[in-house]
Amino acid sequence: MANGRPRILIVGGGYVGLYTALGLQKRLRRGEAEITLVNPESFMVYQPFLPEAASGNIEPRHVVVPLRTVLKRVRLITGHVTAVDHERRSATIEPTSGPPYELGYDVVVVAPGSVSRVLPVPGLAEHAVGFKSVAEAIYLRNQVLSRMDAAESTDDVGVRRRALTFVFVGGGYAGVEALAELEDLARDACRYYRTVRREDMRWVLVEAAAGILPEIGEGLGEYALERLRHRGIAVFLETRLESAEGGVMRLSNGEEFEA
Amino acid sequence: MANGRPRILIVGGGYVGLYTALGLQKRLRRGEAEITLVNPESFMVYQPFLPEAASGNIEPRHVVVPLRTVLKRVRLITGHVTAVDHERRSATIEPTSGPPYELGYDVVVVAPGSVSRVLPVPGLAEHAVGFKSVAEAIYLRNQVLSRMDAAESTDDVGVRRRALTFVFVGGGYAGVEALAELEDLARDACRYYRTVRREDMRWVLVEAAAGILPEIGEGLGEYALERLRHRGIAVFLETRLESAEGGVMRLSNGEEFEA
Repeated sequence: MANGRPRILIVGGGYVGLYTALGLQKRLRRGEAEITLVNPESFMVYQPFLPEAASGNIEPRHVVVPLRTVLKRVRLITGHVTAVDHERRSATIEPTSGPPYELGYDVVVVAPGSVSRVLPVPGLAEHAVGFKSVAEAIYLRNQVLSRMDAAESTDDVGVRRRALTFVFVGGGYAGVEALAELEDLARDACRYYRTVRREDMRWVLVEAAAGILPEIGEGLGEYALERLRHRGIAVFLETRLESAEGGVMRLSNGEEFEA
Repeated sequence: MANGRPRILIVGGGYVGLYTALGLQKRLRRGEAEITLVNPESFMVYQPFLPEAASGNIEPRHVVVPLRTVLKRVRLITGHVTAVDHERRSATIEPTSGPPYELGYDVVVVAPGSVSRVLPVPGLAEHAVGFKSVAEAIYLRNQVLSRMDAAESTDDVGVRRRALTFVFVGGGYAGVEALAELEDLARDACRYYRTVRREDMRWVLVEAAAGILPEIGEGLGEYALERLRHRGIAVFLETRLESAEGGVMRLSNGEEFEA
């Protein structure tokens, strides 16, 4: 206790950390507790809207919540918690700049969130991009448009085909929504290009399981699958990406192409 | 001539290249000429508004003009023109992807624009950021706020002082406007921080000449200088940055500090 007030430490400012802090801030009377939140960034990313940010349907800045402005009664430390010694009620903070230090607490909430999982596929780490941050969303959008620019700027058939092939791995929410939003963006952008048509593009979704979108149940998953295929998207089920070395995609079903 | 129509090649899609293309597009009848514009990006950056984009007073996306959408009758190639053989009326294009190729023309307009000048100051290239692109504007904004975050997240006096010292080199439009807009942003942002006050920050402008803003004349330049100093900004005239190695700024007037 500091001055008789419990010190509450929240590790991580994602959805869970932010709502914990908001709830505490609302329920506690002024001066009843000291709340500290530690997060690598000064903002929280609302992940369900990331695909819309990638396609430009939502402004990227509207997908982030600036933590300081909503958590007025919380002390925000930007950095990492590298260790928690719960016996001593002390956490090790590594701030953005400067030496690490110890921070005492009475109550700790651990909500560190998740990071993109990179499957051990040869070449994937070098050629693929994750989808957890706003920077990645903006990168994906720019990447699709710059690949269309590249195709427009050359007559080389091989360069064009490779530039216009887009591969997504994983048929969960992130993969399917990102693909659907970006394909929509690209389809719409075609009207600004002289030589790039929807038919020139190849959109591919690779999923190891027998269906997509397990989160919404089998029936809806099948409906979504049918809609994707109806839109001309190649969906490979029960298929794994075996390697992506040098930008050459090798699938477990024998398919092989550049992207 | 291609099909009897003159082929016009515009090298560079900055202010000059864009307005040349817009003017031609407006004055020429459909089919009267073939206009091609080559630019590394598919957009033009309106540089006078960059400082406002850096401070967040203007949305970054409103500072760029998407070339394809405004130049509907122009062919846009994203890439570089690496050589112009005017005797043969042929330019070498290096597209974003794929091998270089030759492009014939009848008329060429060369408007390649400028790039940030990095003075040969030891350590400057490693520690400084230019100010010509939207990415640099956003980087500057994030850099100022993340330095304030860093100061808030530690009690180390040295780390705090260094994090809160901002140095600008060059008293022309770019340097003065960037400093003024960012200082304004930081001053305003202070209310979201518990430990960072305006008085804790040090803003420094270094200019080799005897005055600032030569573009607007001596009288207004002196007025601007007075306003900056009134706002607590340290302006060093007839002073050069001699080195920035390891983040330690050494000025020609003997001043030395970390930033």
